[in-house]
Amino acid sequence: MSNQICVVTIVGSTHPNELIGYHLVKKFEQFPELLQRDSFKCETVLANIKGIGTGLRYLDRDLNRCFGNEDLANLKLTSYEDIRAKQLNTLLGPKDRPKSDFIIDLHSSTANMALSILPTTKHPFNLKLAAYLTTLHPAVRVLLGVDCTQNAPRLRSLTPLGCAIEVGPIANNVLNADLFMQTEMIVHSILNYIDAENKGKSLPVPSTLTAYQSLFSIDYPRDSSNEIQAMIHPQLQGQDYEPLYKGDPIFLTFSGEKIDYESESTVYPAFVNEAAYYSQGVAMTLTQKEEIEIW
Amino acid sequence: MSNQICVVTIVGSTHPNELIGYHLVKKFEQFPELLQRDSFKCETVLANIKGIGTGLRYLDRDLNRCFGNEDLANLKLTSYEDIRAKQLNTLLGPKDRPKSDFIIDLHSSTANMALSILPTTKHPFNLKLAAYLTTLHPAVRVLLGVDCTQNAPRLRSLTPLGCAIEVGPIANNVLNADLFMQTEMIVHSILNYIDAENKGKSLPVPSTLTAYQSLFSIDYPRDSSNEIQAMIHPQLQGQDYEPLYKGDPIFLTFSGEKIDYESESTVYPAFVNEAAYYSQGVAMTLTQKEEIEIW
Repeated sequence: MSNQICVVTIVGSTHPNELIGYHLVKKFEQFPELLQRDSFKCETVLANIKGIGTGLRYLDRDLNRCFGNEDLANLKLTSYEDIRAKQLNTLLGPKDRPKSDFIIDLHSSTANMALSILPTTKHPFNLKLAAYLTTLHPAVRVLLGVDCTQNAPRLRSLTPLGCAIEVGPIANNVLNADLFMQTEMIVHSILNYIDAENKGKSLPVPSTLTAYQSLFSIDYPRDSSNEIQAMIHPQLQGQDYEPLYKGDPIFLTFSGEKIDYESESTVYPAFVNEAAYYSQGVAMTLTQKEEIEIW
Repeated sequence: MSNQICVVTIVGSTHPNELIGYHLVKKFEQFPELLQRDSFKCETVLANIKGIGTGLRYLDRDLNRCFGNEDLANLKLTSYEDIRAKQLNTLLGPKDRPKSDFIIDLHSSTANMALSILPTTKHPFNLKLAAYLTTLHPAVRVLLGVDCTQNAPRLRSLTPLGCAIEVGPIANNVLNADLFMQTEMIVHSILNYIDAENKGKSLPVPSTLTAYQSLFSIDYPRDSSNEIQAMIHPQLQGQDYEPLYKGDPIFLTFSGEKIDYESESTVYPAFVNEAAYYSQGVAMTLTQKEEIEIW
């Protein structure tokens, strides 16, 4: 990549049941002038086209797990999402020489993710941008460490600059006007920031970034047939990014017993009670809060 | 029906993506003593068995629309849900001489339905029970008029006594511990009420019932290709059962224009922003608030 960002891509419907991204892309397609900036071209893509309108996260396979190098090179993978990933790789990639310089992948979550920015990599450009975004709205959070290096399976791994935006809480297959408008605000702010950088007129960025670094995920308690045996405890429900201390309740079994967090180390959960993660063995992701020097 | 209620049926997974009902039925199956009352037998049923674990509302057809008399009698209808409806009709019905005397059908909604009781019919028994339940928790609401007379297509129409319970807001395919516990509390209270009635020791019921009578539904604004053009306005989101006056905003278009409620008559919306109703042309159901004399 040159120092100049020439092409920015806004992606919606990577998960077709997350409606904000779809309708925001449709809005931008209807009013393309909203995306016009002097110093780069901005385009939109609907990723899982065939899934749109089905109410599903995916048809055959989660599209946002189809971008690993081996899978992209494996012509025997012929599910709809595998084929679509190869198309998107041609359109936006390939990873070693991407046509898109910056990908914004629009997502939503049933968890209280507020306005989460997930930088694709820890490239200084991404971190500075994230730090800038934290100054714009008190609900902006920066979540690091969902691994999007070159061999990551996520769509946004096609190019090192960019981010996913995860807003919530919102049910799948519904819209929420506040979260829609806030997502649009974040997108416009990213475009403005890139435009300013391109022009050598950097916008003011704080010297430290407060970020949440993913550590590991924990699953629901399950029985021998893999059925969950507990729910997120009411005291933890909706408390994404809040500190979790030893002794705090995390689960409540169906028979009413609480299960506590037992480690000495204070952590900050994210993706608490995300619908798509029940089947993946993830009740929440634990993170640590970090202050990162930007300069 | 005799004056005595002999068999009560608790139904979960009529919509398999509404997890509270499923896990509550599983809990009752694990601890059947929870359902034991002196004066009647209480059984549980998982309705859309094949849909459980799919994350879907239904496989071929909404099971809760398969119980119309013509459909039940039509042997040419061979979708999974049509077949399952006939099985449930055999198990709990038929409508003119049902084996179950009282059906509790457990549902949840992405709308802020709080703890909504939807009596199957306006039979005095149902209304008295609903009035009793309103005294137990401030979040209990009574929604009337989803038509469940003899030819209604809902599962609960198999027997005139009973109700659906619609709790929310909750995303599909997740649990919420508070709503789970509140749903269980409502179920236990219904069983206790029936037991007391059976024994001739009626529990105290208020003399008037505050209920919300369904009037009609309104759809999202749509374009010529049936795409929605607006979202629920932030001022209306989550305001189920609150009064809507002339001039109050109800929708916000994607380009930011608000659309107001224009009728003179004050109404009380319910099912505002329910995920399953987007495809059915329903943004919300408008109701009127009524005070019903119970005695």
